[in-house]
Amino acid sequence: MENGSTLKKKWGFQPNPELNTASEITIRGVLEMLISNLNQSDVRHVIPLGHGDPSAFPCFRTTQIAEDAIVDAVRSAKFNGYSPTVGVLPARRAVAEYLSQRLPNKLSPDDVFLTVGCIQAIQTIITVLANSKANILLPRPGFPYYEAVAQSCHLEARHFDLLPDKDWEVDLDAVEALADENTVAMVIINPGNPCGNVFTYQHLQKVAETAKKLGILVISDEVYDHITFGKNPFVPMGVFGSFTPVVTLGSISKRWIVPGWRLGWLVINDPNGILKEHGIIECITGYLNISCDPPTFIQGAVSDILGKTQDDFFAKIVNLIKEDANTCYEGIKDIPGIICPSKPAGSMFVMVKLDLSAFEDIEDDLEFCVKLVKEESLIILPGVVVGLKNWIRITYAIEPSYLQDGIKRLKAFCERHSKKA
Amino acid sequence: MENGSTLKKKWGFQPNPELNTASEITIRGVLEMLISNLNQSDVRHVIPLGHGDPSAFPCFRTTQIAEDAIVDAVRSAKFNGYSPTVGVLPARRAVAEYLSQRLPNKLSPDDVFLTVGCIQAIQTIITVLANSKANILLPRPGFPYYEAVAQSCHLEARHFDLLPDKDWEVDLDAVEALADENTVAMVIINPGNPCGNVFTYQHLQKVAETAKKLGILVISDEVYDHITFGKNPFVPMGVFGSFTPVVTLGSISKRWIVPGWRLGWLVINDPNGILKEHGIIECITGYLNISCDPPTFIQGAVSDILGKTQDDFFAKIVNLIKEDANTCYEGIKDIPGIICPSKPAGSMFVMVKLDLSAFEDIEDDLEFCVKLVKEESLIILPGVVVGLKNWIRITYAIEPSYLQDGIKRLKAFCERHSKKA
Ligand SMILES: Cc1ncc(COP(=O)(O)O)c(C=O)c1O
Ligand SMILES: Cc1ncc(COP(=O)(O)O)c(C=O)c1O
Repeated sequence: MENGSTLKKKWGFQPNPELNTASEITIRGVLEMLISNLNQSDVRHVIPLGHGDPSAFPCFRTTQIAEDAIVDAVRSAKFNGYSPTVGVLPARRAVAEYLSQRLPNKLSPDDVFLTVGCIQAIQTIITVLANSKANILLPRPGFPYYEAVAQSCHLEARHFDLLPDKDWEVDLDAVEALADENTVAMVIINPGNPCGNVFTYQHLQKVAETAKKLGILVISDEVYDHITFGKNPFVPMGVFGSFTPVVTLGSISKRWIVPGWRLGWLVINDPNGILKEHGIIECITGYLNISCDPPTFIQGAVSDILGKTQDDFFAKIVNLIKEDANTCYEGIKDIPGIICPSKPAGSMFVMVKLDLSAFEDIEDDLEFCVKLVKEESLIILPGVVVGLKNWIRITYAIEPSYLQDGIKRLKAFCERHSKKA
Repeated sequence: MENGSTLKKKWGFQPNPELNTASEITIRGVLEMLISNLNQSDVRHVIPLGHGDPSAFPCFRTTQIAEDAIVDAVRSAKFNGYSPTVGVLPARRAVAEYLSQRLPNKLSPDDVFLTVGCIQAIQTIITVLANSKANILLPRPGFPYYEAVAQSCHLEARHFDLLPDKDWEVDLDAVEALADENTVAMVIINPGNPCGNVFTYQHLQKVAETAKKLGILVISDEVYDHITFGKNPFVPMGVFGSFTPVVTLGSISKRWIVPGWRLGWLVINDPNGILKEHGIIECITGYLNISCDPPTFIQGAVSDILGKTQDDFFAKIVNLIKEDANTCYEGIKDIPGIICPSKPAGSMFVMVKLDLSAFEDIEDDLEFCVKLVKEESLIILPGVVVGLKNWIRITYAIEPSYLQDGIKRLKAFCERHSKKA
């Protein structure tokens, strides 16, 4: 006995327990679980309505201008070296000019920090704001990466609701009720993931007023900027930057359909210099100093990508997504057990509610999605992952014929599991 | 009075104080400070002997094969989408095959995690091992990014010396004296930054024996792998992986002279599965789940880059660096006040000691480097940044004529500041 236990080698290392917990709540993790439930003997195509990446479908191929920009940057051999912490100047300038087109105050290149996708922009601002006792207000439903990062750096997350009956507007009373003297910021995602909504100018103004009153920063995730096809045009939150400080997060992932290129930005809309005065800007640079950078040649391609892409490319993409959104909305209308409170108007998603009383053998959204993947090779995200139990999030931005097929399978599934009269 | 103070708006946000401290000790930070000290009226070229990035010089241009690989991957439009957390399979397989060429046990793609440069590989393994009370053993002199990341995740760093009189070998007695039951790992950098040394097989074996005895992980930073030109060939630490667990960190940055491409790896050399058993592998995936990925098309280019690059390219680059190393070593020999304990044999650096008693008006290495940049537009890293006060680190891997010029300026500077007899 004793011999056995001394023989057993004792190793001094153990995993950091917080990382596993933080990563469990990511969309990636849940989608990988669903994929592992695919029925290998189903000969049909897998229909991926789970995540916002239509890039694999030929109709969603990016513009050749973007590909050329990358090729030119690589061939120039001017961008093989390390980049400055905050990004190369021409790229920062290009982002500043691109975003300034819709802003009353012109941005300067110094307001722009280049990041490895919007993901790193989120990571940066959350980590920079993490202070002992601080808390941040996040939307429910939302994008769970915010929760994961907040947890990994011990920033308390509090949730305000988005209101399904009011086109998913922010419950601003809830924001006021949640905030206290340790609240540092509130996050909005516009156009909305997972709700597919687009905020009006008036509503954004109310958000700005609330934030100013509470003395908190507005973080506006605009990674789906310009992907709108309902009655509300896209309004950048930065238009209120001179009224109250706004940090805008974005990337080329969605509008150019190149999420694998990993080029994003964190932008300061704060002409009054309040964030600088509070040391936030310096801390952003400090964090980026110890973080990884987007590849230099991709930064080198940014001014061509942002500056030369033609409107007809954007129009084509938005039109495709709009038609997909219609197909989806019309298609699910008469599926039993599924309720869609509002027609999607932007991004690539719609949230729909499950009426579980209509089903015979389905307990919750997770069981719904696991059975769906097993029986129909159809991947849809359970709402619990984005904060709404017994809802599901459908990503409709895929090749139209796949979408139609997916909706048929969803219908067949729901009918099969419906309570028999 | 009272009115004034209530009028002053109170904002709820403050920067995370730990980030600024963590980023102060980076090489980037110090180099940016030095650059800000350049004398704008000096019409001569700036000579950058401060950081390991020769990519801007035409003679160090990367191979066309690597450029073609990127161009092909972009043009294929197959790699525009998000990648899996751990990297795309063909790229993981290519790295496994590439590294296995020199290992007794073949690596599997599952042993390979793709990262945004070696920087993210460092960040990953350090964060994964950070546990309350844990400590890690780091080399002095070393690469200060390890210290910065350890600090940002509250992992205590303890330092063992590299011994200048023994070709910068690890002081293994010091390692044993420093380790306790909370020690999780030790880091080696081979070929060495900042010392330009290359460990022998025998010394690496002793490192492995010490680590096994102490029950700690060996983290081997081999970002300069194969850049050797002295008597010792490059031996990957992974050859001892079946004896004691080894995590190897690397990238294409140095061997292919493309640090701006940001493609690196974290590789598990542990055929006995000890790291898996202890949950380390799962935690690595967990961390990468909430981190950013290298762009997918760069991953898509990896198998061509690693598989098709011809030996003559590598030979040319190593030869250039070898000649630079000689030029540097011979050139500084007769500069007063500078002592070089051992001839560089690998990487791109050499550590030299300042004999401050020889100078009239120089207090320490920092003052030496600041005056040097002001008077000679020559950038050299003060040793204090890498852990050795009153030494300096010279990066000799640049265009040969620049190097010669740089050494002349260094000589003129030292002579000018020498004590007059
Ligand atoms: C709301 C939201 N923010 C950020 C991101 C990340 O975007 P990126 O691909 O630029 O990292 C996503 C991706 O799906 C998202 O939905
Ligand atoms: C010892 C060491 N490790 C890691 C790195 C980072 O390498 P990469 O460019 O692959 O991130 C460097 C860069 O200089 C280095 O010197």
